[in-house]
Amino acid sequence: MRKIKIIIAYDGTNYHGWQIQKNANTIEAEITKACHKIFSGEIKVLGASRTDAGVHALGQVATIEVDTAMETWRVPYALNAHLPKDIVVQSAEEVDLVFHPQYYALEKTYSYKIYNTKIPLPQYNRFTHFYYKPLKVDRMKEAAKYFIGEHDFKAFCTKGGSAKTTVRTIYECKVTNDGYMIEIIVRGNGFLYNMVRIMVGALIQVGLESIEPYDIKDIIESKIRQRAGKMAPELGLTLVKIKY
Amino acid sequence: MRKIKIIIAYDGTNYHGWQIQKNANTIEAEITKACHKIFSGEIKVLGASRTDAGVHALGQVATIEVDTAMETWRVPYALNAHLPKDIVVQSAEEVDLVFHPQYYALEKTYSYKIYNTKIPLPQYNRFTHFYYKPLKVDRMKEAAKYFIGEHDFKAFCTKGGSAKTTVRTIYECKVTNDGYMIEIIVRGNGFLYNMVRIMVGALIQVGLESIEPYDIKDIIESKIRQRAGKMAPELGLTLVKIKY
Repeated sequence: MRKIKIIIAYDGTNYHGWQIQKNANTIEAEITKACHKIFSGEIKVLGASRTDAGVHALGQVATIEVDTAMETWRVPYALNAHLPKDIVVQSAEEVDLVFHPQYYALEKTYSYKIYNTKIPLPQYNRFTHFYYKPLKVDRMKEAAKYFIGEHDFKAFCTKGGSAKTTVRTIYECKVTNDGYMIEIIVRGNGFLYNMVRIMVGALIQVGLESIEPYDIKDIIESKIRQRAGKMAPELGLTLVKIKY
Repeated sequence: MRKIKIIIAYDGTNYHGWQIQKNANTIEAEITKACHKIFSGEIKVLGASRTDAGVHALGQVATIEVDTAMETWRVPYALNAHLPKDIVVQSAEEVDLVFHPQYYALEKTYSYKIYNTKIPLPQYNRFTHFYYKPLKVDRMKEAAKYFIGEHDFKAFCTKGGSAKTTVRTIYECKVTNDGYMIEIIVRGNGFLYNMVRIMVGALIQVGLESIEPYDIKDIIESKIRQRAGKMAPELGLTLVKIKY
């Protein structure tokens, strides 16, 4: 038995997220199906991050446990030949059998993109949240700083996640803009269920002047989910990178 | 009767190009349909550029002749409400009735994108030509210069176009690269049928070292279509801008 760590990029538009579900098309299901096409015997696929329906990835990580003599560098090509075009294995490396893609993850980076102008651009339809009300980006930049550090992010998660604690450390939370495109980069030691989308939803409220940048601090301290407001839609979110 | 000039962006993936055809989904057909939903009476739609099936646009231009009292700034919103999400009118302005989107065009700019590495990235699937054989970009940069100027581009067009002359002037032909992404920007006073895709096909041959950069000059002078080789696929091409 060998354990192979693969890095996967996908356009999540047409999938019900990462995790295998009955009667739904998921990324994990497609990876598992492709593995069964090229490897024989029992196969275990384990993903690092359970991305939601419609969320994308540039650097999702998974391990596959397989009994094969295939050279590791060939694995991406072999899997990609059996995967749909919107899911592509970018690279593969053999890892120790004890390696666990969730528990060994040190740091995850997400990107959230907002196209903020009056009229959408079809070129951005799949990977960007179109938002027509003008956002004050300078306020969002200021607000983003309050997320940095170790906090209890109970106000920024949807119930139903499997996390034992709601304390997480955010290393970086940065808002940049280029023309009408706003990008929010968040890097932390881990993320709760829907956490990034709720953080972005709160930043949008700041951008709209519905709340003040320093209100983010209060919302975190309140630990009340309702205080954080509506979460941002899934399609703007991309899992960029996982560091081990 | 008023003439309104509209700028249209589209993801051409699911369309059989600009021009209305029987039994095929086209951009012009969708624009015409949307016009009939919001304006009454006879409507004339005229596009500046007959983009091919699968080709995209950021700045396609069309005129619509309509009998309406609608304020011009409202026209994009009204049309977009009846257009599919992959076709979006970006802006509108009223023009003189003599304005003709084809004849009045002074300059068109196209972009062609190539993602040049061993493994594709699904995020680029729709707007970029994935090409796995390594291309020498410096050679392509050098070759691009030979296109600049007034030339007879007979070797760089597919028969069947409606052009009276095959002489065109190219003002700019620039190859840039950023990581694995190569972009070719071509700006000229007009383009023949499939001209940009054939130019890009020849530049790819230069990048592969199948031909030399200065061979572009010979191919132009030969006026023989076969000498230019295979044209690049449609999905990498975007009509960026038309200047009047």
